[in-house]
Amino acid sequence: MRFVSFLHDGRPACGLMQGEHILLAPASAHADLKAAIAADALADLGRACEAAGQRVAFADVALLPVIPNPGKILCVGLNYEMHRRETGRDVVENPTIFTRFADSQAAHGQDLLRPRVSTDFDYEGELAVVIGKGGRYIAPEAAMAHVAGYACYNDGSVRDWQRHTIQFTPGKNFPQTGGFGPWLVTPDEIPDLDKLRLTTRVNGATVQEATLDHMIFDVPRIIAYCSSFTPLSPGDVIATGTPGGVGAKRKPPLWLKPGDMVEVEITGIGVLRNGIADEAA
Amino acid sequence: MRFVSFLHDGRPACGLMQGEHILLAPASAHADLKAAIAADALADLGRACEAAGQRVAFADVALLPVIPNPGKILCVGLNYEMHRRETGRDVVENPTIFTRFADSQAAHGQDLLRPRVSTDFDYEGELAVVIGKGGRYIAPEAAMAHVAGYACYNDGSVRDWQRHTIQFTPGKNFPQTGGFGPWLVTPDEIPDLDKLRLTTRVNGATVQEATLDHMIFDVPRIIAYCSSFTPLSPGDVIATGTPGGVGAKRKPPLWLKPGDMVEVEITGIGVLRNGIADEAA
Repeated sequence: MRFVSFLHDGRPACGLMQGEHILLAPASAHADLKAAIAADALADLGRACEAAGQRVAFADVALLPVIPNPGKILCVGLNYEMHRRETGRDVVENPTIFTRFADSQAAHGQDLLRPRVSTDFDYEGELAVVIGKGGRYIAPEAAMAHVAGYACYNDGSVRDWQRHTIQFTPGKNFPQTGGFGPWLVTPDEIPDLDKLRLTTRVNGATVQEATLDHMIFDVPRIIAYCSSFTPLSPGDVIATGTPGGVGAKRKPPLWLKPGDMVEVEITGIGVLRNGIADEAA
Repeated sequence: MRFVSFLHDGRPACGLMQGEHILLAPASAHADLKAAIAADALADLGRACEAAGQRVAFADVALLPVIPNPGKILCVGLNYEMHRRETGRDVVENPTIFTRFADSQAAHGQDLLRPRVSTDFDYEGELAVVIGKGGRYIAPEAAMAHVAGYACYNDGSVRDWQRHTIQFTPGKNFPQTGGFGPWLVTPDEIPDLDKLRLTTRVNGATVQEATLDHMIFDVPRIIAYCSSFTPLSPGDVIATGTPGGVGAKRKPPLWLKPGDMVEVEITGIGVLRNGIADEAA
């Protein structure tokens, strides 16, 4: 099943994808995807959407980030060997973890904003994992049972601000820079995560491409590591890192500029599309 | 005025300090300090507490972190020259910013938890700034008008996990490791922030001591910088960095162990006391 978060009559809503349409969640259902996940009721939500049968055209709605209100967004840096090498970072024994605030996210179809204080705006195509059942000290062998689903993520990065100091926080938290969409795909639709292919395109040209088996730390190890230092809760989001090919390491650098279109596609999941616009002056 | 967050009859409550007592906020008041701050109504809250006159003994209550539920917790690393030197970090032109999740906080009087996966548990006494009026791109000259008040912070750090990679996140986010208290002191009580003296004591012995004018980036510059990359909102917390003398850099290292007592005192603000206990197995 594929679930979306979107605005319906100006209010946050959720629904189930059915072809080119969304089946709107009935008023009796959980308030949003996070609440449905917390109640372990995504399948129930899907059935409720089908039973209600209220269709809206996907093309007509303004989407929200897949989870608009995650309690925690954990991001893995340097999780593909080619990207680690292009950035000149050391090999490490544990995942590199930084965080994003929820208000740094953007929905599928929404512009990513190049902030007024920088022109070094870069893409990072990634697989996002949404946590289902929460937990602490989750063992790698048990971790996949804690996954509610997957989506595409564009961990949009303001490179000069990311490099102001040794901590990435500023460059990763500008408002509306992190694309998250288009929908949540439940794990039953993904028979083999490793075989999925991630591709990032800028104005149609491929700039990043890798299969997910190239991750240095795979999804179970990432979940196990993160849950060792912080409790994971339903709806929490983990962006699992980007392959090589980021704009900052190209010669000359490829910075995103207003009017550009960035796509992050993961086979079996979908295509996340975001235009680029300048932040309002 | 000094405001506290605490548990009353098992529910979160807030109140105004009056000597050794808390004047409980009446039911008609804002739900918590963050809500009162968001309504720019701290002074009203104080008057409502005084008018209601319902006293509870400070010594009898279980406090909560000053702001139990901040939307954002931003922490400044390496913001005192002696601490920068003891850690061997480069001089930088901008504040070093990392984040904590709200569930990593602990109240005054509550034990800080040494996690079961580490013995390298360290103190960091700091000044915490609580944001009043929110904003983006706040100019340094305007920044102090965005401060709701001050408190003590112990940015408890699990050093081996902090150093797993170049990002501090894991070592700064273990549950119940960040002391925040005892109360919020409004700015009218602080005529000159620079002159306040921060002292950290472990089992009564002074381990850190500095006046706040030794900050490399002062409060206005920190607020201005953070608000450049992320919108600040009422109740957001900024921990402004720790002076030299952390346990990790002593020879031999001074790690916190169960039964220890850590105090962070800032003159004009108060004393934050936390025992140390092992996390439950």
